Parts: sequence; structure tokens; C-alpha cells
Amino acid sequence: MEDSPQRAVQGLGSFPWYVGGTQVLGLACVVITGVWMGSYHGGYAWDGSGQEFNVHPLCMVLGLVFLYGDAILVYRVFRNESKRNVKVLHAVLHLLALIISIVGIVAVFDFHNQNKIPNMYSLHSWCGMLTFVLFCVQWLMGLGFFLFPGMLMALRSWYLPLHVFFGLAMLAMSLATCLLGISEKLFFSIQHTYSQFVPEGILGNMLGLLLVAFGILVGYVVTREDFRRPPHPEDEALSVHFKTLTEGGGSPTSP
Amino acid sequence: MEDSPQRAVQGLGSFPWYVGGTQVLGLACVVITGVWMGSYHGGYAWDGSGQEFNVHPLCMVLGLVFLYGDAILVYRVFRNESKRNVKVLHAVLHLLALIISIVGIVAVFDFHNQNKIPNMYSLHSWCGMLTFVLFCVQWLMGLGFFLFPGMLMALRSWYLPLHVFFGLAMLAMSLATCLLGISEKLFFSIQHTYSQFVPEGILGNMLGLLLVAFGILVGYVVTREDFRRPPHPEDEALSVHFKTLTEGGGSPTSP
Repeated sequence: MEDSPQRAVQGLGSFPWYVGGTQVLGLACVVITGVWMGSYHGGYAWDGSGQEFNVHPLCMVLGLVFLYGDAILVYRVFRNESKRNVKVLHAVLHLLALIISIVGIVAVFDFHNQNKIPNMYSLHSWCGMLTFVLFCVQWLMGLGFFLFPGMLMALRSWYLPLHVFFGLAMLAMSLATCLLGISEKLFFSIQHTYSQFVPEGILGNMLGLLLVAFGILVGYVVTREDFRRPPHPEDEALSVHFKTLTEGGGSPTSP
Repeated sequence: MEDSPQRAVQGLGSFPWYVGGTQVLGLACVVITGVWMGSYHGGYAWDGSGQEFNVHPLCMVLGLVFLYGDAILVYRVFRNESKRNVKVLHAVLHLLALIISIVGIVAVFDFHNQNKIPNMYSLHSWCGMLTFVLFCVQWLMGLGFFLFPGMLMALRSWYLPLHVFFGLAMLAMSLATCLLGISEKLFFSIQHTYSQFVPEGILGNMLGLLLVAFGILVGYVVTREDFRRPPHPEDEALSVHFKTLTEGGGSPTSP
């Protein structure tokens, strides 16, 4: 155990670079999506035209990629803040992601309906809707388990690993849905020139690779052992409370 | 610590069901891909025709999804076997996955070249080639670090978490590439009827969701804490050996 603190400090030396990397990649994805829809597809509007469709990719990348990733990262970035504050920030960022993604989803449904284009037939839409529904469920369960004051610690402790696993799995699903969306958009827009390596095709493909890189870097930062949040007195108190509860036989998960 | 073994046994009660679930989902993906290409696209051949293309999706799902997932699972499934044997099985399954995926990649390049279709322009091909190259690099690094007898334990220990993280990240990339491939194939084959919910479109979309479910279940089984391989005398010996090496100052990672 002697060299643990030293190792932790060694590991943390590179931590700001990794976090900085996620922000550069995430912002690059948002900006490139914005520029792509702005420059190649006529910008943004809310009038049932193709410009209303353009709101969809921008909102989804901003909400269910960039803000989602940042909401996950807060436990690593604000490692020395009170856990309760970080939880609230995590929930608020996810709520913001949820609201922005609802705007994005309404935009595409409205565009489809106004232009008599069927909804929900493509793999992109199936994966996207599944991800969105699971995201809503996870947000509500997170609220109930971790912010509702009356929740038993034993139940929080049971749900935490599931919440963490599905949080990362859904980020991966969200990114895969974005890749499907990029591919669909390119096949709809430049079907006959895509294979000639035209600038829009290369831009869309690069955006796809940047999204993959963002997901990998966020996943790496939140799963790397020596980037974990160190134990705080507040967390210790919770842990003791949990122990008392479970060993006292009052918990539904105790044997 | 008293209830740890009991908890481990409790956890393992559901373990065979989870592993069985991965196998059912994985095999379903392979069978549905095979049936899709067999029934809707005329089966398989190696003559530069569309039937040669059909070899591509089948080999990629068999190699870089099903066998790749199974290769990852061997450390959980063969939890009481010697670690060396499990390592060799892991490497052999990955080698098999690699060989089958090479056949799949050759099939699509050959089909494109014979039919004067450009290669490597789509997001599917960019993601796929990146995943394939990283998979080859990871396989060679795994061989060098974990099966080459002269490798320093300190280096093995440094590389192990990276190998595990990138192994799972690449499985996710492989699955995302499959989703892109399904979407592309559907837009090429049934572009004008896809939005009418024709059977082929629903089959392709269902295959996509099954691939997502396979990835999530494999990821869950290999990351769930109480499914981890228990410490074995052999592993303990390795650990002591590692400690001796690093504390002796002979390791490049020691402070």
C-alpha cells in the first residue's frame, strides 16, 4: 500500500490531458455537425423544411453525445467536491441532455410528418428510440435511487453498478446511432457522388471517427482505475451507514 | 469479508443463464445474417458476383462478433482452468476470428474490384478497417505481452488493463460497424420499400437490435464484479513473482 498515493499522483498527472482531450473531441463533433448542416444543407429553421431536419443531428450530438459524456465525467473531474453536489450536477447535465434531445427528436418527427415521410422504419430510428427510452428510464431510476432521500442504502448499493454499466452502454448505443444517422444522411444526400470521395462524404466520415474517438476517450477516463474518485469522509460515512443497515438485517438484500 | 464466498456463490447462480444468453443471441445473429444473405440475396459463391459479397456479412458477424465475444468470455466461463490454458484458448479463438474476418474482407474487396465499385469510401468501411487494423495490433500485442515467455511481469501488469479496455471498446466498434453495414445493405437493396416496413427491412433492423443485445450482455458478463475469475494458486504465484520483480527495482515501471 505504501506507494499507492504516489501512484495515484503519477496517474493524475495525465488526467487533465485526457479530460481536455474529451472536451476537444466532443466540441469538435458538435461544431462539425453544426457546420455540416449549416454549410451543406442550408442552416436551421422550424418550418417543416429540410432546415428543420437540420436541428435533429445538431441537438442529438449536443445532447446525447457531448452533454451525456460530460455528465458521466463529472465524478472524475470534480473529484474533491461533495458527492451530493456532484450527483446534482450529474442529474442536471443529463436533464439538459434530455431536453435538448427531445427538441432534436421533435424536429425530425415534425419534418417527416410535414413532408409525408414515414417515421421509425430505419435501423437508425429503432436504435435511436431504444437509446432515448432507456436514457429516460435510467434518468428516472437515477433520480429515485440516488437523489430521493428515503431510498435505502442497500438498494442504492445494489443499483449503482447497474447504473454505471448501462450509462456507458447507452453512451455507446447513442454513438452507434449517430454513426447510423451520418451514414443515412450521406446516402440520402450524396448517394451518387459519395463513392467519389467528395468533401461532404469525407466530412461525414471524419465526424463518425471523431465520435468514436470521443466515446473511447470518455470510456477510458471513467473506467481507468487510478482516475477513480478517492474515498471522502462523506462517502465513508455513507458506507458505514450502509454496513449498519445491512448487518442489522433491515435490508431487503441481506441474506 | 465473512459473506464474500456466499455472495460469490449467490452471484454465480445466475452466471450460466447470462452466458447461455450470450450464446443464444450470438448464434441468432450468425443464423439471421446467414438466412438474410441466403434467402433474400441468392446464397453464397466465390465468383465476383453478389453471392461473393454475401460471404462478407456472414464472415464478419461470425468472426468479429460471435467468436470475438466468445474469446472475451473464456476467462469467465473457464474460471477454474489453468490461466495459461485459458490464455491460449483466448488467443486461438481470436486467431480464428481474425482468419474468418480476413476471408470476409477479401470477399467484399474482390466483389467491388470485379464489379468496378470503389472501395473504402463509406463510413462503414472506414470504421470497419479501423476496427480490423486495431484488432490485428491488439492480437499481436496480446501475443507478445501475455504469451511470449520472456516478457517482464511489470510490463504485463501495465498492459493488462489497456488490453481489457481496448478489447471491449473494439467489440463495440465492431458491432457499430455491423449496424452501419446492415443499414447500408438495406439502403442499397430495398431503398424504395424500406419505409413500407417490408420483411427484409424488419429482419435487418431486428438483426441490428440483436447485435446490440449481444454486445451489452457480453459487456455485462465480463465487467460484473462477482463474475470475475477467483484468485488461483497459479495466479497468486505470478503475483508474488511480479511483486519480487518490481520491489527488486528491476522493473522499468518501478519508481
